[in-house]
Amino acid sequence: MPEAASAAAPTRATIGDSEFDRDTALTARAPGVYDIDLSAGWTIINAVNGGYLLAVLGRALADTLPHTDPFTISAHYLTASQPGPAVVRTETVRTGRTLSTGQASLLQYDEEGREVERIRVLASYGDLDALPDDVRTTAAPPAIPPLQECFGPQDGPSPVPGSSAITDRLMIKLDPATLGWALGAPSGRGEMRAWFGLADGRDADPLSLLLAVDALPPTAFEIGLKGWVPTVELTVHVRSRPAPGPLRVSITTRNLAGGFLEEDAEVWDSSDRLVAQSRQLARVRLG
Amino acid sequence: MPEAASAAAPTRATIGDSEFDRDTALTARAPGVYDIDLSAGWTIINAVNGGYLLAVLGRALADTLPHTDPFTISAHYLTASQPGPAVVRTETVRTGRTLSTGQASLLQYDEEGREVERIRVLASYGDLDALPDDVRTTAAPPAIPPLQECFGPQDGPSPVPGSSAITDRLMIKLDPATLGWALGAPSGRGEMRAWFGLADGRDADPLSLLLAVDALPPTAFEIGLKGWVPTVELTVHVRSRPAPGPLRVSITTRNLAGGFLEEDAEVWDSSDRLVAQSRQLARVRLG
Repeated sequence: MPEAASAAAPTRATIGDSEFDRDTALTARAPGVYDIDLSAGWTIINAVNGGYLLAVLGRALADTLPHTDPFTISAHYLTASQPGPAVVRTETVRTGRTLSTGQASLLQYDEEGREVERIRVLASYGDLDALPDDVRTTAAPPAIPPLQECFGPQDGPSPVPGSSAITDRLMIKLDPATLGWALGAPSGRGEMRAWFGLADGRDADPLSLLLAVDALPPTAFEIGLKGWVPTVELTVHVRSRPAPGPLRVSITTRNLAGGFLEEDAEVWDSSDRLVAQSRQLARVRLG
Repeated sequence: MPEAASAAAPTRATIGDSEFDRDTALTARAPGVYDIDLSAGWTIINAVNGGYLLAVLGRALADTLPHTDPFTISAHYLTASQPGPAVVRTETVRTGRTLSTGQASLLQYDEEGREVERIRVLASYGDLDALPDDVRTTAAPPAIPPLQECFGPQDGPSPVPGSSAITDRLMIKLDPATLGWALGAPSGRGEMRAWFGLADGRDADPLSLLLAVDALPPTAFEIGLKGWVPTVELTVHVRSRPAPGPLRVSITTRNLAGGFLEEDAEVWDSSDRLVAQSRQLARVRLG
């Protein structure tokens, strides 16, 4: 009775068979050239989420390079992506024994059908499973209350401002201490912390970590700013393959100045391992 | 009596007329193609310093792009550079009103005269002087004792291990609290702090900030490791044009794991402004 059993318990998606995997799947047109239809399921207001786009580019590079895990990936965001057809072009820059480096561009088409570049990426890939086990970290996991004491877009009396299609794809439960902005009382501190997962239950892997670092509300909201905070550049270091289970994401902004700010993210897995670090430079549209 | 006056007081180099400016000067061979002789004056042991190399690439992009200040520059280090002839090739990726994005590669030649790529860079440039004056930072300058209470390679009874040609070009005075490694008693904390300048007195500018973030001894020394810590990737955000006077550089490592570590640098100017933030991913050669 497999069907009855599956109807009784909600089916958890798996790595390779989930919304995230389907929506980052690429079709190879030629060596180093991939077609994809960017899903409207990962939009915030009308913009396609930058972390989802980075995962698309990261997946293309994993296919192109001899190594499959992004160790460090740097993306410069050029123009705003739209849901719909896109092409990814990759280039192998160097292959080495333990690391290989590649470049990728995401392009879409203007009204005349000309390619317009959306994002350009440089990345060095390796094999996370081949790393030694040594951990000599002084970093500690963020203090976030238990998941059931945190709040997501579905928990409020009214939707969290800025909610959009992507909220249906993600499990985000924000630490109440960084939720003041949603209640009209931002803390003034540039911090955002949350439990994070994919809504269909798919566990995290190195590619979905590229999404995790850019999926929380902007820290600028807790500083008291409103409006859009477009990413100029985002670099992610994947430091370990994440264990199954929900992630904790902590984002900090220390320096809002001259119309720009940095967002530093840490991602921790269920075994208390720091699995990713990221930093982005974003513009502040002062509202 | 200008000559007598200049003999009496040491001449301070100026932006545009200094060792750093001469050693980062490029000769345009064609649009987007530049020749340079990488100076042996910026080597540590036998390796050319990665920050000096980033400044060379940054200068080429400032010449290529319509904007002159690196806002965010990401470098992936592919192979070890050597003093001697090199070529820089640049490409304009996108030009916009407030930001433009470019790519650059540094290449040298193997025994057969074939080009070997050393570093590839993506960067977004703007105009620091056009930014609004707002500063809403929670970051505070590092607590470093006064310059005369800090120590450089010239101050010890024996040269600091690893000293090399670059130490003659730099004014680095390390906070005694992060100097334990040089005395055989590392603190165990991944921290390095110093006053920083160019030895000939040239003041800092956005290009020399690219050098400043990668010029201190590795934080790994204070964690108790010895040996080389080669950079895989380095991203620098320049947030403000530095005021004249010495800089303070603070570098922190939180996560040494799996044979890699991150180094986060902050650079503060004499007016207590956070002028640059950087992060690099480096390999640890466990000694």
